[in-house]
Amino acid sequence: MFSIKGDIIHTPEKDNFAIHENSYIFIDNGKVAEISSSPKENIPVCDFTGKLVIPSFSDIHTHAPQYENIGIGYYLELLPWLETYTFPAESKFSDTEYAVTIYKKFIHDLWLFGTFHSCVFATVFKDSTDKLFELFERSRLYAYIGKVNMDRNSAASLSETTENSVSDTLYFAEKYSSSDRVKFIVTPRFVPSVTGKLMTKLADIAEKYDLPVQSHLNENPSEIEWVKALHPEIDSFTQVYEHFGLLRKNKTIMAHSVHTSEQELEILKKYGTTIAHCPESNMNLASGIMPLRRNLDYGIDVALASDISAGSSLDMRRQIVSCIQLSKLYHRKHPEHTPLSLSESFYLATKGSRNFFTDTGSFEIGNSFDALIIESENTTLAPTERLEKFIYSVDGKITNRYLNGKELTFDL
Amino acid sequence: MFSIKGDIIHTPEKDNFAIHENSYIFIDNGKVAEISSSPKENIPVCDFTGKLVIPSFSDIHTHAPQYENIGIGYYLELLPWLETYTFPAESKFSDTEYAVTIYKKFIHDLWLFGTFHSCVFATVFKDSTDKLFELFERSRLYAYIGKVNMDRNSAASLSETTENSVSDTLYFAEKYSSSDRVKFIVTPRFVPSVTGKLMTKLADIAEKYDLPVQSHLNENPSEIEWVKALHPEIDSFTQVYEHFGLLRKNKTIMAHSVHTSEQELEILKKYGTTIAHCPESNMNLASGIMPLRRNLDYGIDVALASDISAGSSLDMRRQIVSCIQLSKLYHRKHPEHTPLSLSESFYLATKGSRNFFTDTGSFEIGNSFDALIIESENTTLAPTERLEKFIYSVDGKITNRYLNGKELTFDL
Repeated sequence: MFSIKGDIIHTPEKDNFAIHENSYIFIDNGKVAEISSSPKENIPVCDFTGKLVIPSFSDIHTHAPQYENIGIGYYLELLPWLETYTFPAESKFSDTEYAVTIYKKFIHDLWLFGTFHSCVFATVFKDSTDKLFELFERSRLYAYIGKVNMDRNSAASLSETTENSVSDTLYFAEKYSSSDRVKFIVTPRFVPSVTGKLMTKLADIAEKYDLPVQSHLNENPSEIEWVKALHPEIDSFTQVYEHFGLLRKNKTIMAHSVHTSEQELEILKKYGTTIAHCPESNMNLASGIMPLRRNLDYGIDVALASDISAGSSLDMRRQIVSCIQLSKLYHRKHPEHTPLSLSESFYLATKGSRNFFTDTGSFEIGNSFDALIIESENTTLAPTERLEKFIYSVDGKITNRYLNGKELTFDL
Repeated sequence: MFSIKGDIIHTPEKDNFAIHENSYIFIDNGKVAEISSSPKENIPVCDFTGKLVIPSFSDIHTHAPQYENIGIGYYLELLPWLETYTFPAESKFSDTEYAVTIYKKFIHDLWLFGTFHSCVFATVFKDSTDKLFELFERSRLYAYIGKVNMDRNSAASLSETTENSVSDTLYFAEKYSSSDRVKFIVTPRFVPSVTGKLMTKLADIAEKYDLPVQSHLNENPSEIEWVKALHPEIDSFTQVYEHFGLLRKNKTIMAHSVHTSEQELEILKKYGTTIAHCPESNMNLASGIMPLRRNLDYGIDVALASDISAGSSLDMRRQIVSCIQLSKLYHRKHPEHTPLSLSESFYLATKGSRNFFTDTGSFEIGNSFDALIIESENTTLAPTERLEKFIYSVDGKITNRYLNGKELTFDL
């Protein structure tokens, strides 16, 4: 056992920060054992007096192969952006050597920004996706990784047959079935990319191996129209996933959900689906503002996500800030929807993904000690103000990273 | 004469970037003389091959004394935010020594982020405002600086009598009347802070010394209600300024203008008022989205602004990005208002303030050579893509700064 001394801040509940100023957090076998205002005899102390101790971040929706594209192409909306920028970028991942270069950079930056848990889209390509598993394993970071399925409406360079898509998916389901740190997640890109036949088969695989599922939902009006045209017999985008068995109870992530009706929300709630809220992406691709307060009030699980490369940064602070900002703009037009507080948005970036990463995101007793140590230049401010300045990227840098109670360095 | 070689990008017009890849910009006596694809015999070259050469930024609305507050207090809207955070922060500027510390940091960061021209609110306090003039003079940066006028509804620690407010304003009007680099601008805080009597006197001073004016307009619904209650006989917020003679032709800056009617827009257009658009501030204080495309189509001059400390960063790249993002969200709800392109938003942060800083913001012949040299890690991309990545803070850093054709270092 050892302890860490500092200004400890976390969000066991979303409505308020729990603050333990100048306190000790005791770590036993990698897990949080106690938080106390006094040290214990014979227990060694790592002294971070004057620094913040906060939980590490989780990113519940991101695309590793798009990392080279961050910051470009934002003059387009979703569908032309996919055609012009994203599909060509992902096509390069047939080259495994190239993939390793980009994936290493991506994982390095997750580490750099203090995001130790993430749900990641790879590409259709089996070999480079396998490399991504391997690199994540070596990095010690936690992840769900999806080999992407695309058997219709894809760029020629990314197309796969239904059969290949199924057999490659089975390969990952088998290979990583007993994996603990880096797990496989079934990843149909989105309805327009996957035939009904493939959706059915993916649902069977997910059922058989008890796997989670991730995909995209109701991001952009043109995308929604396209789904309607592809499945005119089904009432809504959400129901297409339901129809094909891809909404797995408490095991599904749907990214965006900007334009989701209350009827669809009812379905998402029934299945315990987690919405990946991607505020910066939703601005960059002109997708719109998700009614976040409505969804939270509805009892839907929401977690924050960078959505690289529609989002431009892996730094979850950017998403926490954008999330608050969008909720304020929504509030201005819909006064009954109160804006998100800093603690709420922080919670969505730490504990929001609790259905997928169960023992991290806060310092509750028994959780893994996954933490960031933050040093501020201005040490005269209260801990919450230093946290605010850190989140708004004004003052404060990460000096130490802990995962499972051990210092986490980067070495890939 | 000398030349600078690099990938030159600027926006003489807002709709497109002018791009001179691997070219030479010739600088004679601090001014742009020519851009050419070839060098000239006997003219020395500063070789920045592979780097970008872009105009420096302008920030048309910012509050230097609020700099310590960036990143905190954003859970409040405008009026309670002023009371709780801003007025207490500004009160400290009765202490000139303290003021110098903060003002130096503020000017340093303007320099750091490449903003060489700015329009700045100081405080009501004469002595520390005088120091701000002195510091800007020594820094070589260009600025309009306003001693703030507040003779009603102010915190006790910031209050001034109408007479003192007038005499201090006259002091600055006289002292800096022939100043070239750092100029005085008449600065009634906003209607609720200034009596009709004081507004009339300030208008007289502005008229007598031919001074520009800066203030705030239509930022927040509660503020607008307050102005209505204070001046029930006048139809609109804009007309209050007009009524008291504070809309000086082509010499007025009004910050925000988020909730401005078409009737008011007509008045702003008549007076050639420049709107300071503060997108990040408008999110942080839940002010709303200014209909930017409508205002541009109307022929209103708009320039971008950080609005420290309602905005959280002096980095104008943040404002360029937020401006584009807000225009996309507005477009989603009002499809006829097209989103701003990168070149348009870049223009608003460089040439948008052309009524106040006439010979900067682009490399047109005869303009002052005010430029930033940008080095990218990824040198394989086209210049515009490198610029995009720089603006989105993904890749690229400022390695050299030029003002009036000379390298600008920081030494205060």
